[in-house]
Amino acid sequence: MKEIIEIGKNAKEASYELAHLDTSVKDKILLQVADALLLKTGAIIKANKLDLTQAGEMGLKGAIVDRLTLTEERIMDISEGMKQIAMLEDPIGEVLEMKKRPNGLMIGKKRVPLGVVGVIYESRPNVTADVGALCLKTGNVCVLRGGKEAFNSNKIIVEIFREEIGKLGLNSNMIQLVMNTTRESANALMKLNEYLDILIPRGGSGLIQAVVQNSTVPVIETGVGNCHVFVDESADMSKATSIVVNSKTHRPGVCNAAESLLIHSAIADQAIPQIGKALIESGVEIRGDSTVCKILDEALPASEEDWSTEYLDYIISMKVIDSVDDAISHIHKYGSSHSESIVTSDYQNAQYFLDRVDAAAVYVNASTRFTDGFEFGYGAEIGISTQKLHARGPMGLKELTTTKYVIYGDGQIRK
Amino acid sequence: MKEIIEIGKNAKEASYELAHLDTSVKDKILLQVADALLLKTGAIIKANKLDLTQAGEMGLKGAIVDRLTLTEERIMDISEGMKQIAMLEDPIGEVLEMKKRPNGLMIGKKRVPLGVVGVIYESRPNVTADVGALCLKTGNVCVLRGGKEAFNSNKIIVEIFREEIGKLGLNSNMIQLVMNTTRESANALMKLNEYLDILIPRGGSGLIQAVVQNSTVPVIETGVGNCHVFVDESADMSKATSIVVNSKTHRPGVCNAAESLLIHSAIADQAIPQIGKALIESGVEIRGDSTVCKILDEALPASEEDWSTEYLDYIISMKVIDSVDDAISHIHKYGSSHSESIVTSDYQNAQYFLDRVDAAAVYVNASTRFTDGFEFGYGAEIGISTQKLHARGPMGLKELTTTKYVIYGDGQIRK
Repeated sequence: MKEIIEIGKNAKEASYELAHLDTSVKDKILLQVADALLLKTGAIIKANKLDLTQAGEMGLKGAIVDRLTLTEERIMDISEGMKQIAMLEDPIGEVLEMKKRPNGLMIGKKRVPLGVVGVIYESRPNVTADVGALCLKTGNVCVLRGGKEAFNSNKIIVEIFREEIGKLGLNSNMIQLVMNTTRESANALMKLNEYLDILIPRGGSGLIQAVVQNSTVPVIETGVGNCHVFVDESADMSKATSIVVNSKTHRPGVCNAAESLLIHSAIADQAIPQIGKALIESGVEIRGDSTVCKILDEALPASEEDWSTEYLDYIISMKVIDSVDDAISHIHKYGSSHSESIVTSDYQNAQYFLDRVDAAAVYVNASTRFTDGFEFGYGAEIGISTQKLHARGPMGLKELTTTKYVIYGDGQIRK
Repeated sequence: MKEIIEIGKNAKEASYELAHLDTSVKDKILLQVADALLLKTGAIIKANKLDLTQAGEMGLKGAIVDRLTLTEERIMDISEGMKQIAMLEDPIGEVLEMKKRPNGLMIGKKRVPLGVVGVIYESRPNVTADVGALCLKTGNVCVLRGGKEAFNSNKIIVEIFREEIGKLGLNSNMIQLVMNTTRESANALMKLNEYLDILIPRGGSGLIQAVVQNSTVPVIETGVGNCHVFVDESADMSKATSIVVNSKTHRPGVCNAAESLLIHSAIADQAIPQIGKALIESGVEIRGDSTVCKILDEALPASEEDWSTEYLDYIISMKVIDSVDDAISHIHKYGSSHSESIVTSDYQNAQYFLDRVDAAAVYVNASTRFTDGFEFGYGAEIGISTQKLHARGPMGLKELTTTKYVIYGDGQIRK
């Protein structure tokens, strides 16, 4: 696809310039863009209205329209977020593990940008600003392929970036929006190995799986979270209750929300009514195994499918198990390796669970909702990786970098 | 493909056991296998003879047959290498960056195995032993899909591993050989996302590209190295000569050998005859641009294609350029981002080159031949990554790991 190849070439070219900008220049761009977003709030909202009108005509509604909508307040938040990214430490240029080898060579790893980052995403126009800012801060050129439903909003935000970059006499192709929002343009990006160093899909699991299945460009898989809380027999019941309710109901529509509750059989009689009641009072539907249904009248019977379902809603599956090992087996069988929590007062079981559970984030006595770049202290995040290569869990600025070996010699040759 | 799915399931199951073996147990297995390889040298050589006979019938010869051949000495080397891996520090279990957050949560990153590592490779049966040992040491189950030309040799080596693992009462599926060596089995592995965490192709660029293009399992790309040496105007001529000759001729058939020589125009009159002569005396054919051909009678004219060719042979392309910037542009245009070296006495140019060249390893005043896990002090390597995600350059034990977040709480919920 000619347009995409052109974008790729432009991106690659710009990447050599962006990779070596001083931090102060990158931060200056971010602060200027943050100001320009505020100054141009009117125009942004106007562009967003075009998208919303079209969304109405297309029959879109509810959560999708909400995610698509930009208000004065949301634009202020985006601008504020950008200023915060400008304040964060620049990871680029740090040299790690520099060592002197027996032959006198000094070998170290220098942190450098990935190069060109492609992002394929849906509806939310704030992703455009977030990704643009995170990539710029880390010296990465970004190629943004947003959804057609947010096209006008994305376009004006990218234009603001490009204008401010241009004002400093720099190559505005450091950020590019793909104007073609057809499936073909997404497919072309997935095969653009010559120019893209990495492709990040952000959106529903349909989009993410399409990218994972079709991309020859290296992909960071994000997304699906079938997270569990396991209440061990020694759990403090009041902590267990608040952790379960928080994990499930603090924001049910996100990937780090709990979808399944495992309860140790030794405390089933006490825990199921108490935690069950709290969940029901919070508006949660419970789908339980036979023991749960026997103890809790309000519980509906769970099907096999429930154990592997990410509800993203006020629904939780609930199962009684007989040991930490059984809990771990269940989690490995049905989980998605995102966030898993044990509530326990037992030292051995806590360490055992932490050690054995294979997931991006494993908790003892805390809500699964903490799996988040901001909560982890990274200041910003580009997503939560659910795969094992390169980055796992919340991805901050550092995860948008790679390293190269730098070697200082004095004429050394290999014997 | 049923056989491959079965292997995948077995691997996944074994991975939970292997991930938690104590280092002492893993090392014990390695030492036992190292001894068993020596004890069974006769049987291994017999199995290898079967492969060599078939190779002869298939008309294979030269380097391929050499790589396929196991001798008593080579088996001793393999055994010795395995003992050395047993001596290396186990990276698994290390906790990095543990920090206390304002809400009291203790958040750290624990180094854990990737899980199940698939490797698709050609001819060399020593890869079977190397990969088996590296994966075992790092707690990774491996699924080995070797070439049919080495089938009998691979089979006996894997059997020795499995026997020694079994002797300790452990799950011998920690290492499995794919018995089916058709293209279908390789293709099936490339789609085995449910069970494989990573796929590493080792072999020629045809194999590597096939895996990169077709695999939905995350891949580590290794291989192609169109490496340059740039002799700057301030270069010490004697160092430059020995670095160029070493980079080109120390072992021309490997990826970190230099394929192209760039010479600053200000010293062309002196450098081209001197370095040219040394190369020619080492049996190297020179393909030069017009200036090189004018100065050096023996040089053949280079075509545009030469600049991007990885000869893997006693041939080098040679070009005169006018500045460090031009050298960097040339490297970015034609290079493969593997290993690049500048020979210079100029501080600014050295730093500028190190900073600007986008490659896995960038050298000042040293041979490109050092890009190697052993030379970098890693004790062992599974390959040299030429991509930017996860690992770049020589991959040692650490690069066969990932991290998971471990979070110690005391009832924290998200506000």
